[in-house]
Amino acid sequence: MTTDPNTSPFPKGEKITNGYFTGNAFLTPLLARDKNNDFVLVNVTFEAGARTNWHTHPKGQVLLVTEGVGFYQEKGKPAQRIKTGDVVNIPELVEHWHGASATHKLVHIAITNYQGDNNVVWLSPVSDEEYTEVNKH
Amino acid sequence: MTTDPNTSPFPKGEKITNGYFTGNAFLTPLLARDKNNDFVLVNVTFEAGARTNWHTHPKGQVLLVTEGVGFYQEKGKPAQRIKTGDVVNIPELVEHWHGASATHKLVHIAITNYQGDNNVVWLSPVSDEEYTEVNKH
Repeated sequence: MTTDPNTSPFPKGEKITNGYFTGNAFLTPLLARDKNNDFVLVNVTFEAGARTNWHTHPKGQVLLVTEGVGFYQEKGKPAQRIKTGDVVNIPELVEHWHGASATHKLVHIAITNYQGDNNVVWLSPVSDEEYTEVNKH
Repeated sequence: MTTDPNTSPFPKGEKITNGYFTGNAFLTPLLARDKNNDFVLVNVTFEAGARTNWHTHPKGQVLLVTEGVGFYQEKGKPAQRIKTGDVVNIPELVEHWHGASATHKLVHIAITNYQGDNNVVWLSPVSDEEYTEVNKH
C-alpha cells in the first residue's frame, strides 16, 4: 500500500460508515440538491483497497477523478482503470462499482442526479475474489 | 504575476476566444449535456488578471475551485475572494463575474445548468477600473 499525499482540491472529510462500502472511504459534501441543481455534489476519497458496493443510479452519475488510480466496472464487463483527469459518465440503471486500486488511493467528485427523491440503489458488496481479479490486470 | 505550476486534475485546454473574457483564459470541455445530465461541465483556467465579462445564468451555475486564487462578484456587492476547495453556488439571473486575481491563476470546474436551450447571457466586460478596485482589498 502506498501512502500518497493528499493533493486533491477538496477535503478528505469523514469516514463513510453506511455499510455500502468495503475498506476505508471518506466523504465531504460539496453541495446539496436545490431548486437549480437537481443533483448532489460530493467528494469521495477511497484509500487503497476501498470500493463501493455494487449499485445503480436511477438517473446516472458523473465521476470527476481528481487524484489517484482506481477502477470503474459495469456488471458483466471488464473493469476500466481510471485515474486523475478522467470523467466517467455512468448510465442510469446499470449495475456497477467504483473504487481505489489495491495499491493506490482514488479521489473523485461525484455528481449524482435525482429521479424523484432517489439517486442510488445499493446492492451486494464487491467480493474479495471479484476485486482481486480486477487488480490482476 | 506568478508562474504557478499546473497542479489541477484536468487539462488547461484551449484559449477562449469568444470575446466574453478579458486576458488569457483557457477551457477544457469535460462533459456535454445529455439525457441524464441537464448541464454542461467544463474546466476553466484563468491566468493572473483574466476574468469573465459580467454575465447571468438562467438556471444558475456551480463553480468548484481546484487551484489558485480569484474573485466572484455579484453586481452591487463586494467581491468574494475564492480559492482552492471553494464551492460557489451562483443563483439564477444574478449579474456577476469570476476570474483570477491580479497576481495568481484561478482554475475551476463549472457545472452550468440549462433553461431550455440556454445557459448563459453575456454582458459587458469587467473594466480595468472595476477589476483594480477589487484587487485592492
